[in-house]
Amino acid sequence: MTEFRGVFPAIITPMTQDGHVNEAAFREVLEFNIRGGVHGFWVAGGTGEGVLLTDDENRRISEIAVDQNRGRSKLIMHVGAPTTERAVGMAEHAARAGVDAICAVPPFFYRPGDDAIVEHYRAVGAAAGLPLFVYNLPQSTGVEITPELMHKLQDRIPQLKGLKHSSLIFANIRTFADMGLSCFTGSSVLMLPALTIGASGIVDGPPCAAPERWVEIWNAYNDGDLGRAEKAQREAHELFEAATGLGFHVYFATLHAIVSERLGIDCGSPRPPLPALTIAQKAKVAEKVAELGLSAVPVGADGS
Amino acid sequence: MTEFRGVFPAIITPMTQDGHVNEAAFREVLEFNIRGGVHGFWVAGGTGEGVLLTDDENRRISEIAVDQNRGRSKLIMHVGAPTTERAVGMAEHAARAGVDAICAVPPFFYRPGDDAIVEHYRAVGAAAGLPLFVYNLPQSTGVEITPELMHKLQDRIPQLKGLKHSSLIFANIRTFADMGLSCFTGSSVLMLPALTIGASGIVDGPPCAAPERWVEIWNAYNDGDLGRAEKAQREAHELFEAATGLGFHVYFATLHAIVSERLGIDCGSPRPPLPALTIAQKAKVAEKVAELGLSAVPVGADGS
Amino acid sequence: MTEFRGVFPAIITPMTQDGHVNEAAFREVLEFNIRGGVHGFWVAGGTGEGVLLTDDENRRISEIAVDQNRGRSKLIMHVGAPTTERAVGMAEHAARAGVDAICAVPPFFYRPGDDAIVEHYRAVGAAAGLPLFVYNLPQSTGVEITPELMHKLQDRIPQLKGLKHSSLIFANIRTFADMGLSCFTGSSVLMLPALTIGASGIVDGPPCAAPERWVEIWNAYNDGDLGRAEKAQREAHELFEAATGLGFHVYFATLHAIVSERLGIDCGSPRPPLPALTIAQKAKVAEKVAELGLSAVPVGADGS
Amino acid sequence: MTEFRGVFPAIITPMTQDGHVNEAAFREVLEFNIRGGVHGFWVAGGTGEGVLLTDDENRRISEIAVDQNRGRSKLIMHVGAPTTERAVGMAEHAARAGVDAICAVPPFFYRPGDDAIVEHYRAVGAAAGLPLFVYNLPQSTGVEITPELMHKLQDRIPQLKGLKHSSLIFANIRTFADMGLSCFTGSSVLMLPALTIGASGIVDGPPCAAPERWVEIWNAYNDGDLGRAEKAQREAHELFEAATGLGFHVYFATLHAIVSERLGIDCGSPRPPLPALTIAQKAKVAEKVAELGLSAVPVGADGS
Repeated sequence: MTEFRGVFPAIITPMTQDGHVNEAAFREVLEFNIRGGVHGFWVAGGTGEGVLLTDDENRRISEIAVDQNRGRSKLIMHVGAPTTERAVGMAEHAARAGVDAICAVPPFFYRPGDDAIVEHYRAVGAAAGLPLFVYNLPQSTGVEITPELMHKLQDRIPQLKGLKHSSLIFANIRTFADMGLSCFTGSSVLMLPALTIGASGIVDGPPCAAPERWVEIWNAYNDGDLGRAEKAQREAHELFEAATGLGFHVYFATLHAIVSERLGIDCGSPRPPLPALTIAQKAKVAEKVAELGLSAVPVGADGS
Repeated sequence: MTEFRGVFPAIITPMTQDGHVNEAAFREVLEFNIRGGVHGFWVAGGTGEGVLLTDDENRRISEIAVDQNRGRSKLIMHVGAPTTERAVGMAEHAARAGVDAICAVPPFFYRPGDDAIVEHYRAVGAAAGLPLFVYNLPQSTGVEITPELMHKLQDRIPQLKGLKHSSLIFANIRTFADMGLSCFTGSSVLMLPALTIGASGIVDGPPCAAPERWVEIWNAYNDGDLGRAEKAQREAHELFEAATGLGFHVYFATLHAIVSERLGIDCGSPRPPLPALTIAQKAKVAEKVAELGLSAVPVGADGS
Repeated sequence: MTEFRGVFPAIITPMTQDGHVNEAAFREVLEFNIRGGVHGFWVAGGTGEGVLLTDDENRRISEIAVDQNRGRSKLIMHVGAPTTERAVGMAEHAARAGVDAICAVPPFFYRPGDDAIVEHYRAVGAAAGLPLFVYNLPQSTGVEITPELMHKLQDRIPQLKGLKHSSLIFANIRTFADMGLSCFTGSSVLMLPALTIGASGIVDGPPCAAPERWVEIWNAYNDGDLGRAEKAQREAHELFEAATGLGFHVYFATLHAIVSERLGIDCGSPRPPLPALTIAQKAKVAEKVAELGLSAVPVGADGS
Repeated sequence: MTEFRGVFPAIITPMTQDGHVNEAAFREVLEFNIRGGVHGFWVAGGTGEGVLLTDDENRRISEIAVDQNRGRSKLIMHVGAPTTERAVGMAEHAARAGVDAICAVPPFFYRPGDDAIVEHYRAVGAAAGLPLFVYNLPQSTGVEITPELMHKLQDRIPQLKGLKHSSLIFANIRTFADMGLSCFTGSSVLMLPALTIGASGIVDGPPCAAPERWVEIWNAYNDGDLGRAEKAQREAHELFEAATGLGFHVYFATLHAIVSERLGIDCGSPRPPLPALTIAQKAKVAEKVAELGLSAVPVGADGS
């Protein structure tokens, strides 16, 4: 059985007021999630603003994550970049830093074709020598990772382990699972549905703000308790609505604000051009966090 | 609780060799499905080639369906048409014929805008005075029925009962259910996932060829037996793959052939321009039906 | 040299107040355009609401058009329909009625695949035995007619003459022209640009309201007078803006109103679900017609 | 009258065999184009692989271009980047280096919304204090730059000068020109059509391999010689077909190869993941260059 299963929050990258990676806050958010029962993390991916980070920042984040994690969860480090050279460089470093797996969006901006995508992933996978996850995010990359393309990747890349599937073609989860891949759904409101057709778990941003809600879906599902799982999915849905309620263009900023409010720390704002919240919007987030009854330490996180 | 729940096959419209509606075969397919435990039918819709039928054929089909059904299941009659006048005429007749509800795709070809779509459905709903279902099928109509549009329809149309949701935006099922609508998923491979986020059931073509497989999903789900439900969904998936295995362009023809083979009748071919199967393709279908172990009478159909 | 060249207005189908085809008004609009110097017509197509007409109405319109035209211009009659049988029936009748050519959108709603599309057009072309034009209108049909598909059609259909190209892939006009096809652009604001890369002319709705403006583009282009052609295209653009200024959802209604106002007749409203104009909107149209200085008889129409 | 008019090749960035920017070759390609009569350059844009370069490489390229150009043509330097900070840094440097204008794709990967796009461009424009061009390239960025968005940019950004329009919505060229913007078409096969509806000229990759062909379109158009302009556009089309004949996924590699072959230098291959040509493909390119009769020095480049 694969060891990459369960709740893998796509962790935000907290920023300082002057726009640098906030190491202390990042450690706190990791710790908060680990105590919340998560099984791993998707680090410096879409939610973590990987594409907006420098390669040095990416490297530093992988080191901090490994240091803070101390083997308690599985770390999947994002190393996607527009050039193969940069992705390979980050992949090599991630392996040295000690993460458990790497992941990457396909090369974006240009659409170099299937063969070039396979070659890119082959180089990245070989560089790290670690389990490799593809990130299927067509709304950002313009490339749909189809079952056909995954077959080509499987044929060529021994490290290929699975994918995060954030595409609208939901039924492909079944197909990917039947190919022996670990397929995480990228939609936090569809975790339970995805599990029923073979998904390995969830990778998305909202769980990073309320891990206990998605951990509860996972536990209820594995207990075979359908009613409890559906209830948990509905409660998870509330968190998603809180994260997107101010509009999708400030979704990342809202997620930063929810985590800040809940943990009582300052996670700052996403890196421009991603927009920040206004003071009025932050006040609304604070209200919402109170309304949802989110405690600073996830309920049930320490075994209760 | 709504009475429109469960397995509602989108029934094929069997044709004679010279291209007319085959009444005897239609009655047999209905009967086969009722014995298979279905809760209702979606008649003369996408699978039933409603858009390719004359209005007179549509009317005749509603009469046959009511006569054969004898109140044993819920009949949802499709009355969608390019003009409001034609849709209204079919809606009035369907009500007189005695169906339980009507359904319609939004006006297609032209994209007249939300207000015109609302007015079209208002006229159709008022004409029948029966529960009204919207058919969200953007791949054919070019119109995505959004939650915003459904809110407008709810505000104006007292007959509005729900929708068949065949769009890729899977998560909207939750939203529609929360609006008090009866939302059927239109994807037979996603029935179980859809149920876990509030769907009322399934409307799709493949169940019409093997109703027992989707009825088993329904029963297992309602028994809270997750493992059994997942197993049933996988077995249902096999039937879907049989129906689409020769290519999506002959999906309707394949479905006709599966039903023909299984019931030992001749359901003919879809109406051109929908393509027919070659003899070699029909032979493959026969093999597949044997391989899947599909008996003529659905197992468990008569109460066992 | 092809005889299907120049300005071919997509003529509206005027309606009476009670929603029937208004024969007298239709004759007047035809006459107005012929006097305006047009080279032919695209009859009962998208602008003519062909898809919303009954087959009997379609037949009647072809007869009226032939009768009124008296050979003065080329009539291309639209016979597209969801079923091959209906399209074939209208094609046969159009030939008997005496039109010069037929045209058809590909089968819509279902996407039966290239082979089925070719077979559909083959049957339609053979039924009429007249020059056949394909109508590439992906925004309504969901099917992009690619050069590859046109090659397949050319290989199989001796009647194939050309197409109306209303797709966004503007550069394909060059490709189609190089295939020996008569390719009309479907965008009235791009007539001049289209001519410079090989288009045969224009087929669109706005010219039906002000044929003289597009005839002037045609004449200036053929005189090799670039400055005059550009000026004419800009003046044609004004008419397009008048037709779309109230919104695209009432574009057809606005076009009816402009023609009504200019000719002093009542062309009625499009058939529902296409929306009608409000009284306030009609008043705006009247203002616009006055502002544009549109006389009842096109300037220069009778040789001046 | 704007000074940004005419033929502005999107110049390739030649690479050495070990993947570094090949300064000598870059200077030769610039020189070749200047002698070919071009009016300016689009430097380090899509064709120039700007998104795959490091910021240092971008800076160095701007310095080389200014040094080689010696004021003979207008240099528009691309400074687009995923973060505002990086784009601003490159914009500041480009201004110091002495280019004539800057250009940038909108922030890509994330879709931060109109307000954030405006703020991004505002910061970039203010940083350089030079004329600013937007690069509308939705197939890579996922963002269509609409007239509405351009109005917002015009309202806020005094440096805004125009755009390169590589979108399928061809008719928007007229709209942008009417807004007082300098609108370059991004399609080398549509230069003449674009000029007839108000475009300022052409920015695209193929002209960098055969500038004389597009310069001839420009000259013929400005002479009002329609026949000669159409002939020139057809001959330009041949070059486009040569550049894309091996498939769009190797379009950049093919363009490198054509320039290499024609100038007798080695421009190398695009940066991975963009694929390189095989030896067999390079041989085909050489044949094609010979077949097209492309001399090393553009015919007519020195006044003949």
